[in-house]
Amino acid sequence: MGFLDRVQAAMEKNNSLLCVGLDPSPERFPASIQAMEKPIFEFNKAIIDATADLVCSYKPQAAYYHACGAEDQLAMTIDYIRTQYPDIPVILDSKRGDIGSTASQYAIEAFERYQADAVTVNPYMGIDTIEPFSSYADKGTVVLCRTSNPGAAAIQNLSVQQDSGEPAMLYEVIARMCQEQWNQNNNILLVVGATNPTELKRIREITGDMTFLVPGLGAQGGDVEATVKNGLNSEGKGIIVNSSRGIIYASDDDDFAKAARNAAIELRDQVNLYR
Amino acid sequence: MGFLDRVQAAMEKNNSLLCVGLDPSPERFPASIQAMEKPIFEFNKAIIDATADLVCSYKPQAAYYHACGAEDQLAMTIDYIRTQYPDIPVILDSKRGDIGSTASQYAIEAFERYQADAVTVNPYMGIDTIEPFSSYADKGTVVLCRTSNPGAAAIQNLSVQQDSGEPAMLYEVIARMCQEQWNQNNNILLVVGATNPTELKRIREITGDMTFLVPGLGAQGGDVEATVKNGLNSEGKGIIVNSSRGIIYASDDDDFAKAARNAAIELRDQVNLYR
Repeated sequence: MGFLDRVQAAMEKNNSLLCVGLDPSPERFPASIQAMEKPIFEFNKAIIDATADLVCSYKPQAAYYHACGAEDQLAMTIDYIRTQYPDIPVILDSKRGDIGSTASQYAIEAFERYQADAVTVNPYMGIDTIEPFSSYADKGTVVLCRTSNPGAAAIQNLSVQQDSGEPAMLYEVIARMCQEQWNQNNNILLVVGATNPTELKRIREITGDMTFLVPGLGAQGGDVEATVKNGLNSEGKGIIVNSSRGIIYASDDDDFAKAARNAAIELRDQVNLYR
Repeated sequence: MGFLDRVQAAMEKNNSLLCVGLDPSPERFPASIQAMEKPIFEFNKAIIDATADLVCSYKPQAAYYHACGAEDQLAMTIDYIRTQYPDIPVILDSKRGDIGSTASQYAIEAFERYQADAVTVNPYMGIDTIEPFSSYADKGTVVLCRTSNPGAAAIQNLSVQQDSGEPAMLYEVIARMCQEQWNQNNNILLVVGATNPTELKRIREITGDMTFLVPGLGAQGGDVEATVKNGLNSEGKGIIVNSSRGIIYASDDDDFAKAARNAAIELRDQVNLYR
């Protein structure tokens, strides 16, 4: 079963479009977790056990593991999800992008070393830097399109003169390339931030029923109703709504896993309210 | 001493604009190296010892270490250069790019965990994803501008309508942003591929004396004379010419280090011929 089918199945099983981002900052863990031998893994494990019936995917953010040399705990985390909750796919958020021979190495990292089900990639270097990922037909390749950060517009909203003569914003051009040219294996997804619901709507118009990974709710302040209404595809699905800090740090205390569960229920239900 | 000053000093000391890329593929190592406990580090060490008097920098490509879980050997490699050849700065080629809080983690990875002197980054997400790197004032931040791979043009050569009304290609817009807005600490460099000498010339016109990291000679087929003539700045420097596979795999046999030295001498001298 391919990545998109697996996400869909998890969406249905758990009645949830929610993805929980696993961005561990050890200094924010309760002291009891900090004292453990593998604190990042233990923290993630507690979050996963508390939320696995509420989500359609998990998304570990590679930077947090690379910063402190915790690649082993990233591997343990993904392996734990795969063995304990095999219905929940894992998106490795590492935003890779490099020339073909190097991109192949990054694909090996994501799909063979870590056994992730999908990976985020950057489109700036073009299709030959995406294909080494998307050629793994049963894995997902999630291309940055319109990101949620404040500085994104200065690049992604540049006005591009298309061959047709019509102007379009850069993110629209990327969305169209993904839809029309890059999606040969039907396993491309797009990153579209919740912080720009109008642009989310525009990208939905361009890409038909393509699935989006939507960060920016929660800590980044995106609007749930506008995000869901503008993002859903014709099947009432098509968005994977990610929240990281808003869920995993709902409490800084020993009750963090229970607080994460409550925050996940709240966001899942808010999202479902507008489906 | 900041990164650019260190590169300049190494360029003068070794009379070289050459950067050797450390992209280790263990299956290409001679059997004697493959049999060692830390084959990647031993291979790199031999290459470094054979070329340290011929280069202005080294550039380990992160993907090759991530693919096989050799982060420890990446750290050992950088540490070896820092302790044995402290005059030669190290560019970590990892092409990171993410929202500010995550980019800060990647900056910690590059500059604190690995103690690299510079890192490559992707501009697609905007200035707030670059600043966490460039705020390390004594480190170099090397922004992708016009890359050397075949698929780059479809994105980087898109025609952008600027505020002035003048059209420009996307890579020109990125170059101008780096020059005029993003270079507050005077530590931004650009990646400009040798495979496009005309574009290299155009980017030189836009950016004054800014320093470029120029991949694409050697295995990727760029032209040395055109690259050097179009790339040099007003001081007869300003380009760091990278070659990876053309040097480190000059021989697949036990004489690989000597062959790498000969290939490095040849490319260094070819480059110097046109300075």
